Amino acid sequence: MLWYDGRLIAEGSVAFDLADRGLLLGDGLFETLPAFNTVPFRLDAHIDRIIRSAVQLGMPLIRQQLEEAVLALAKLDPSPCVIRLSVTRGSGPRGLLPPKVTHPLVFATRAIWNPTSAFGHSSLAISAIRRNPTSPTSSMKTLAYLDSVMGFQEAQAKGADDALFLSPNGSIACTSMANLFILNHNSLVTPALDGSVLPGITRQLIIDIAPRLGLSLSEKNCSIGDLMAADLVFSTNSVRFISLITHLDGQTLSTKAMVTGRKLSSALADQVRQECNGFVLKAG
Amino acid sequence: MLWYDGRLIAEGSVAFDLADRGLLLGDGLFETLPAFNTVPFRLDAHIDRIIRSAVQLGMPLIRQQLEEAVLALAKLDPSPCVIRLSVTRGSGPRGLLPPKVTHPLVFATRAIWNPTSAFGHSSLAISAIRRNPTSPTSSMKTLAYLDSVMGFQEAQAKGADDALFLSPNGSIACTSMANLFILNHNSLVTPALDGSVLPGITRQLIIDIAPRLGLSLSEKNCSIGDLMAADLVFSTNSVRFISLITHLDGQTLSTKAMVTGRKLSSALADQVRQECNGFVLKAG
Repeated sequence: MLWYDGRLIAEGSVAFDLADRGLLLGDGLFETLPAFNTVPFRLDAHIDRIIRSAVQLGMPLIRQQLEEAVLALAKLDPSPCVIRLSVTRGSGPRGLLPPKVTHPLVFATRAIWNPTSAFGHSSLAISAIRRNPTSPTSSMKTLAYLDSVMGFQEAQAKGADDALFLSPNGSIACTSMANLFILNHNSLVTPALDGSVLPGITRQLIIDIAPRLGLSLSEKNCSIGDLMAADLVFSTNSVRFISLITHLDGQTLSTKAMVTGRKLSSALADQVRQECNGFVLKAG
Repeated sequence: MLWYDGRLIAEGSVAFDLADRGLLLGDGLFETLPAFNTVPFRLDAHIDRIIRSAVQLGMPLIRQQLEEAVLALAKLDPSPCVIRLSVTRGSGPRGLLPPKVTHPLVFATRAIWNPTSAFGHSSLAISAIRRNPTSPTSSMKTLAYLDSVMGFQEAQAKGADDALFLSPNGSIACTSMANLFILNHNSLVTPALDGSVLPGITRQLIIDIAPRLGLSLSEKNCSIGDLMAADLVFSTNSVRFISLITHLDGQTLSTKAMVTGRKLSSALADQVRQECNGFVLKAG
């Protein structure tokens, strides 16, 4: 089943207006989140983020319409799933300028959530594509996602799992789908939200959880050298939770602080259990 | 009428797969070109460009399929029109990686070409968004076009007609829809194709025409100061041909070399007359 324009419909093609600005110009937003036992994890945070971005794009969204799309798909079946919620600015005349009155299109799809995607590990390859801190596409989850597609393809072609995107100044930013954290002793560092980085939902959860585990947390610039020298490097993503980064451009990274990594994974799994009707995520 | 997936159909909604990567990820390309007297202007150049970009994106396109889409719409009616040809990578499973075998979707739309759009004038406002020379979205006409949408909206909100995008180093790059040229005496300069700039079809035509009019042409970095001090500044675009830039951030630019600007406009109009069954474009 799909959610399309206000209702659940069977999988397959839908009646679609080719003047839709999401299709023609990447003029829209999306969120991806898992649901367990019919409960989307961190729904409020995802809806908050998409609405905040939509305000920046000048695209009015109605919270209830977004929530009902995700909830309708989550409640279809208690099996773990991944829901992608997409919003476009709707149709418009030829040209870049949106019409004065827009009718955003909301749709959502549901896919099987693969348990092996959580708490896995990942190798990175540095991408030739750098993030653009001046572009709204770097700090929002927009439909104009081609840099991530191309970076990901480039990484896979090099035999790595994912791309490492740098900021224009050479500091590390994120992967094609995840935020990054560097751990040294009890000190956790993640790149600051300087425009190059998406304000990840799991990133924020780690920031919230860290003090409880006795970890200090700072948001600041990190270099490739910092990453290579760290006790542990991991990425965070709403569907994969935490992934250990084991290699960068073929070089092995330290997993010395694995015990702390496991504690963070367990804390995330606890959060899922509490918020999603007792669902047990296996922590790595 | 629309061209959709291999045939002409009536305007209105089409049967569309919501798993289309153009819609979900901006994973596709487009071209916009005018047609006069049923003849698309510079069709080969546009098809060459979209195929070249598709090769870079790893997306196989069949030249004949693209040509027939544009020609079918051009031949509907001899009245001047603007045709937009769009291509997506087609549908795929969840995630960033395209499927091994892709079936690109080709569609095209036709709109009325407004004669006042050619050889007009335009005011620019410098955008806070800068071009990203490392991103494929800067040098290709991809569906991930949100930077141009946002830049254009920002310019309009400031009371200007269009945005001036700068490169990360502060040199001028392009507008949200056009290339830029600076004229001093008989010397024409346009920003080099360093990754920040789309290789415009009309840009290339000006480069080809310039020597015939006794103008030297160089492709190199240009500063805002160069632009402010020029004898004439104009932008080029496939639908608008040449637009004089009269203002930048509210400051008046020189139109001292207007005579040369008119010669370039006449040369473009001649080209249209020769290639499009004698259609007479009014040169400004």
